[in-house]
Amino acid sequence: MRSHYCGQLNEAHIGETVSLCGWVHRRRDHGGVIFVDLRDRDGLSQVVFDPDRAETFALAETLRNEFVVRVTGLVRARPEGTVNPELPTGGIEVLAHELEVLSVARTPAFQLDEHASVSEDVRLRHRYIDLRRPEMIDRLRFRSKVSNTIRNFLDDNGFLDIETPILTRATPEGARDYLVPSRTHPGEFFALPQSPQLFKQILMVAGMDRYYQIAKCFRDEDLRADRQPEFTQIDIETSFMDEEGIMSIAETMIRQIFQRHLGVDLGDFPRMTWTEAMRRFGSDKPDLRIDMEFTDIADLMAGVDFKVFAGPANDPQSRVVALRVPGGATLSRKEIDDYTRFVGIYGAKGLAWIKVNDINAGLEGLQSPIIKFMPEDVVHKVLARAQATTGDIIFFGADKINVVNEAIGALRLKVAADTGLVREGWAPLWVVDFPMFETDKEGNLNSLHHPFTAPSCSPEELRDSPATALSRAYDMVLNGTELGGGSIRINRPDMQQAVFEVLGIGEEEAQEKFGFLLNALASGCPPHGGLAFGLDRLIMLMTGASSIREVIAFPKTQSAACPLTDAPGPVSTKQLRELNIRLRETQQQAQQS
Amino acid sequence: MRSHYCGQLNEAHIGETVSLCGWVHRRRDHGGVIFVDLRDRDGLSQVVFDPDRAETFALAETLRNEFVVRVTGLVRARPEGTVNPELPTGGIEVLAHELEVLSVARTPAFQLDEHASVSEDVRLRHRYIDLRRPEMIDRLRFRSKVSNTIRNFLDDNGFLDIETPILTRATPEGARDYLVPSRTHPGEFFALPQSPQLFKQILMVAGMDRYYQIAKCFRDEDLRADRQPEFTQIDIETSFMDEEGIMSIAETMIRQIFQRHLGVDLGDFPRMTWTEAMRRFGSDKPDLRIDMEFTDIADLMAGVDFKVFAGPANDPQSRVVALRVPGGATLSRKEIDDYTRFVGIYGAKGLAWIKVNDINAGLEGLQSPIIKFMPEDVVHKVLARAQATTGDIIFFGADKINVVNEAIGALRLKVAADTGLVREGWAPLWVVDFPMFETDKEGNLNSLHHPFTAPSCSPEELRDSPATALSRAYDMVLNGTELGGGSIRINRPDMQQAVFEVLGIGEEEAQEKFGFLLNALASGCPPHGGLAFGLDRLIMLMTGASSIREVIAFPKTQSAACPLTDAPGPVSTKQLRELNIRLRETQQQAQQS
Repeated sequence: MRSHYCGQLNEAHIGETVSLCGWVHRRRDHGGVIFVDLRDRDGLSQVVFDPDRAETFALAETLRNEFVVRVTGLVRARPEGTVNPELPTGGIEVLAHELEVLSVARTPAFQLDEHASVSEDVRLRHRYIDLRRPEMIDRLRFRSKVSNTIRNFLDDNGFLDIETPILTRATPEGARDYLVPSRTHPGEFFALPQSPQLFKQILMVAGMDRYYQIAKCFRDEDLRADRQPEFTQIDIETSFMDEEGIMSIAETMIRQIFQRHLGVDLGDFPRMTWTEAMRRFGSDKPDLRIDMEFTDIADLMAGVDFKVFAGPANDPQSRVVALRVPGGATLSRKEIDDYTRFVGIYGAKGLAWIKVNDINAGLEGLQSPIIKFMPEDVVHKVLARAQATTGDIIFFGADKINVVNEAIGALRLKVAADTGLVREGWAPLWVVDFPMFETDKEGNLNSLHHPFTAPSCSPEELRDSPATALSRAYDMVLNGTELGGGSIRINRPDMQQAVFEVLGIGEEEAQEKFGFLLNALASGCPPHGGLAFGLDRLIMLMTGASSIREVIAFPKTQSAACPLTDAPGPVSTKQLRELNIRLRETQQQAQQS
Repeated sequence: MRSHYCGQLNEAHIGETVSLCGWVHRRRDHGGVIFVDLRDRDGLSQVVFDPDRAETFALAETLRNEFVVRVTGLVRARPEGTVNPELPTGGIEVLAHELEVLSVARTPAFQLDEHASVSEDVRLRHRYIDLRRPEMIDRLRFRSKVSNTIRNFLDDNGFLDIETPILTRATPEGARDYLVPSRTHPGEFFALPQSPQLFKQILMVAGMDRYYQIAKCFRDEDLRADRQPEFTQIDIETSFMDEEGIMSIAETMIRQIFQRHLGVDLGDFPRMTWTEAMRRFGSDKPDLRIDMEFTDIADLMAGVDFKVFAGPANDPQSRVVALRVPGGATLSRKEIDDYTRFVGIYGAKGLAWIKVNDINAGLEGLQSPIIKFMPEDVVHKVLARAQATTGDIIFFGADKINVVNEAIGALRLKVAADTGLVREGWAPLWVVDFPMFETDKEGNLNSLHHPFTAPSCSPEELRDSPATALSRAYDMVLNGTELGGGSIRINRPDMQQAVFEVLGIGEEEAQEKFGFLLNALASGCPPHGGLAFGLDRLIMLMTGASSIREVIAFPKTQSAACPLTDAPGPVSTKQLRELNIRLRETQQQAQQS
């Protein structure tokens, strides 16, 4: 039906007769002539209808935005002064000989270039309009191309693309499962997988050696923080390889993607232990584009007569840090108040600060609500350790360790974004040597990753001091976002047993929850490990999109609904009866009324 | 951890020190020496432990089948007389210097080479053992490679890999949906997609131009006939292209897959109208490897005094056919009785036949329970039309059209398989010109494909004579199996309206069921169409597997359960409460007791 895509035409085609298909992007009538910008997946071409061809001209007069047409015409150079150098096709236009209206369109719910002025709900409800925007098409195309690069990279490296079930059993990731009632097994349910974790480990036990899958995963969580009920994971697992080998393959893959699709050389990824990351940045996914770091000052504050600092400084469960913001002395009182409220979200009870107006003027050169509570030499030691100079502001965090890490960690990101202290470019790193367990509020140990993660010590050492045991896990972080993570898995029943013991999972519970994995471990399980990347997030970062919803064709809203299809929706009583379930009374009543 | 895969070693490696990792496939002690066949994904290598290295030898004595080990040793030529020419590695062996037991294994549920003697349920329950069989690994590897070829072919042809939702709204394919209760929208449900049909059409309306996805699809049907609750579809859709273009791309893709992965040139696919396929083979997916065809003989039988034939011969809703089986005169009475029972499954009330013992001997040369009811000239005309020769048997079908088609169509396949009349090789074809609608028992018209399939006539013609209207649908058939199918879709609201009218779908119902698609059609919808292939079935055919369960890593049983993970399973009352559902009383009681 067409000879070229609209976006493909240029001066080389002048004199050719071409056929184009696409949408009427814009129509202008000017000087007795009709100009139509015709749009398809590849771009725009200007089509000109002149009155010399009366019939075609008359039809062109009926065109409205978003009509679908087929045009045949002659490519010619645009007249002097009408060349548009910003458009690849801006040097030419197509003089229409024939016009066919393939489909009319009613006035769209919103004009493509006015999408910013409508709510996201309207955009999602009319997604077939919203996706017509070139940037949306480009993002989905980019995603498709990156997926293909990933697949070919893994295929070339001997990984087999193996599909694992969507209708499966509850997995141990800990988030809430989506459930699917079984019709043939009354009263029983499938769960949608939170990840293919157990299946990929089974595939290793089965000798598949190298597995990958770009897999749909599901979590029925409340959708704060740009999450989706279903998301896509690049899932990788390999046997007979240690963490060095796996990290090397993963890093090479990500480097190749950035090289090929963005022309960016990410270089070798630095490594940082979890302990160092938490100490310097209060985060296990530090954004290394920001040079600000935490300065621990508990030793300096332990003796001061200022309880807000001295208390945490003398508590081993707490932490006192300074965060120097270069040039931050210009922050207004209101801005500082806003940051104080901001760290409050993370549980900080206040935000102490010192402005360094003149580093050489002693206390006179400082401005702060707190220095009056401290000996002068402590103030100077703090400034020296934080490497403060004239024009800086120093913020302080003093609280339980995780409150300080979260509050000041978030403040670091926010202040840097607000004040232009985030470097351009890409800052990848590996975070390694994670603790095996974290302690919850009740003092119980929980797996930091999942209970199949191998520790870097023996079963005996693990039992002896679980709280300090490190795991063979690794996370890839890019610009402060966790791109992916994984670990070497446990491949020996005695080690798995030790981990379950530490977690307080009894034999019966273990057998019930993970029996088939334990049986597999006992049936000749190779050393193995792997990792998983969040594809949505990777594409979001690479395209500079503001949300993963911008790189997913049909995302759900924050309430886990699809405005386009109106999913979820009601179903018939007959369907429920077949599935051996009924709605809870209150719902039934609500539905009947 | 290893220098080579076990299957990679050959005479070129003699004299090299190598490291292998894998499973103990078999251990033999012979002449004071221990031989271990070590197995990994790529094959087997023979490893030799001799008593000269006492420590290693002692460890080797502990090896049992399916232990996972790492061996370092010297590749050497096998001694004269012990070379195994059937194994790629059969010319060499590895003299072990070091042995490391990476993981022990208890006695497996079944030995790999005894899989045929255990039930499929046992194989599925211990799938991590079952998948170790080289043929299973090879099939999954083949599947992965074919998927990759498909993806690259489509990527090269400008198709974008776009993911569509798994949590969505009920789709109109007509099978039973799997439902997922929504936690955040009490009383409402998602459906798992039976196909991405509506989404891919929306993507065309959104201007994506060319879409593909290797997509999971779900149908909650009773699993006769080698079906799975979740299956995988190669889903394709394109805009501004007619059926010729789409069929050409699809055919090229399948040809390329067979060329690359089986070294088979499928050639150009012949085309056959649906009407011709039903007439000649009683099937819309004829197996062209079988030369037998139906011979219509209603005109010859209309006047005979044999009601079994004359009745259907005079009924326009019925059909009378002969099926010549070359060499079938040797069939025993018992075999014929078995075939009679077989066609009974399809509703045939009997199976008439004539054995042609000598074509030149008149009625004397024939043997048949029915010729006594017919004039001799009719018998001879039937034999002549069926091109019968000495040694054949002719079977007859006389009944309602669909009974004859199904019964004699199935008989054709069965007799051919039983008597070696199925040619070796591959017989692809396109079936085209399907009817738009089929009439159900109540006389209502239903879509033969789905209600978005475009007819090859105008809306007016469709309304005037819907029963004879043809669609722009096409099916690709290979060796009697439907590999895939698709159609040009309706892209104009007036045509969609006409189809809904014929189907008796009122405006309100249409709006409720497909409102978002109708809105999309009215918003500038390009001409578009596509098709979908069943990946499981394609791989099954190409690998010669006996069932799609043999080409799926973790299939479900006939009762839609997974013996490996014991899915589906019970869930807690708390989970159900969160989802605003409860079990029906009878189930609840059953569970509590």
